[in-house]
Amino acid sequence: MFNNVTIVGVGLISGSFALALKEKGLAKHIIGVSRTRESEQKALKLGLIDEALPLKEAIQKSDLIYVAIPVDVTIPMVTEILDQINDWQIVADAGSTKMALCKAVQLHPNRHRFVATHPMWGTEYSGPEAAIHHAFTGRSCVICEKELSDADALQKIENIYNNLGMHLVYMAPDAHDVHAAYVSHISHITSFALANTVLEKEKEEDAIFDLAGGGFESTVRLAKSNPAMWAPIFMQNRENVLDVLNEHIVQLRKFKACLEKENYDYLIELMENANKIKRILQ
Amino acid sequence: MFNNVTIVGVGLISGSFALALKEKGLAKHIIGVSRTRESEQKALKLGLIDEALPLKEAIQKSDLIYVAIPVDVTIPMVTEILDQINDWQIVADAGSTKMALCKAVQLHPNRHRFVATHPMWGTEYSGPEAAIHHAFTGRSCVICEKELSDADALQKIENIYNNLGMHLVYMAPDAHDVHAAYVSHISHITSFALANTVLEKEKEEDAIFDLAGGGFESTVRLAKSNPAMWAPIFMQNRENVLDVLNEHIVQLRKFKACLEKENYDYLIELMENANKIKRILQ
Repeated sequence: MFNNVTIVGVGLISGSFALALKEKGLAKHIIGVSRTRESEQKALKLGLIDEALPLKEAIQKSDLIYVAIPVDVTIPMVTEILDQINDWQIVADAGSTKMALCKAVQLHPNRHRFVATHPMWGTEYSGPEAAIHHAFTGRSCVICEKELSDADALQKIENIYNNLGMHLVYMAPDAHDVHAAYVSHISHITSFALANTVLEKEKEEDAIFDLAGGGFESTVRLAKSNPAMWAPIFMQNRENVLDVLNEHIVQLRKFKACLEKENYDYLIELMENANKIKRILQ
Repeated sequence: MFNNVTIVGVGLISGSFALALKEKGLAKHIIGVSRTRESEQKALKLGLIDEALPLKEAIQKSDLIYVAIPVDVTIPMVTEILDQINDWQIVADAGSTKMALCKAVQLHPNRHRFVATHPMWGTEYSGPEAAIHHAFTGRSCVICEKELSDADALQKIENIYNNLGMHLVYMAPDAHDVHAAYVSHISHITSFALANTVLEKEKEEDAIFDLAGGGFESTVRLAKSNPAMWAPIFMQNRENVLDVLNEHIVQLRKFKACLEKENYDYLIELMENANKIKRILQ
């Protein structure tokens, strides 16, 4: 049980994290740090946080500082927080990329108080209003470079995620970023591109609305995601994302060739191969 | 209320349709026609049908014959059924393409007893076991060439779909196929291709399984769909599907170029444009 926890960012992940901490009795008092007064007020009103404070004051009061903001600003933010903490305080982040951050803080004298995490949960919504109860449960949470975190810090963070019902997975930051490109980042790019495809080609919006039952909603859902969050993820992980994106274009071209050449047998073969994903996703 | 309804095919759509007819008190007795004895037995055991009969006998006994089988075999099947019916019987189909079928039956002397429909509902599963209660509700159902169906036949089919809680939309077959390519067929192709991409690149299946919370499941769900159902759809609608697929590859290449050139501003712009899909899908 933490007495005071600061969440930096008061949005989807941090807000849901704050709600979960309270629900599970893991934190007495939650302090919110936000760039805007408007978000602070919303977070207070929604009961995500008990108090809004400037960063410096928040750090001074807190046992745990949890950073969940876009990955580009996470790096200077975590560095700034590590600069200011004492040896009993813990810092953790929730970013969707881990390589750049882990590298940036690698030599920081307080690196040992930091735990690099990525809870694999999210929705296409953002901001304080997007925070929900019972998030995270049943999902995986990646922890990177656990050997660089102090045992007490690691254990307390693991304890939180375990209490939230998450399945802990340990990976090196580079492995995390490769896998995240495959199973998360590429899905977002295909969704954004699919939305643009349909918006470009389908001028009758009523038809999209009327007919969207046919599988469109689930594949395009992620296209509602926040660009300010996703652009930095794609940029930080651009080599892995490009690698997967190139392969995806190759795979789409195979479908295209089948249709152009009316090669029914190969079309069936491509789909039967795709069906193998059933083995992995029940 | 129909006395006897025959469903041709005893799978996801026909099975769910049969369950709904019984639930809503719209049919007294349901006859199943299937290619295989195994499916008939499953459908009987699952209570989807009351009786399994050969096609000819089933037609003779039925007020309504509802065809929900892959779109390539739908054409000869609907033709064969129209050959055998009397002037009080009704035939309808549930196929995902409408152009080829409507054209094929256009000059049939019994065309006026046929109603061409496409209920926009489905899941990635197939077979009798995939049939579920309360399917269709809240979704759209397209009816094509309603002017070519007798008023009584049209009205009875509209009545069924209305009772199932569907929203009726009327379209020409060519318009239906264009819109279906945009909002349904392309989503399936991208999902199949995405599954193949990840299966090709990600050799660690455990990692897919562990990390799939990050949006992957919803975009790849449709890749579990039945190739025997989807290959004929893509082939019948190949010109429209190719048109949308080409545009989709163009859109993906824009993301690729942004990443290659590290053009952050254009990347944001592409995603902000994709966000407009929110306007259409709430």
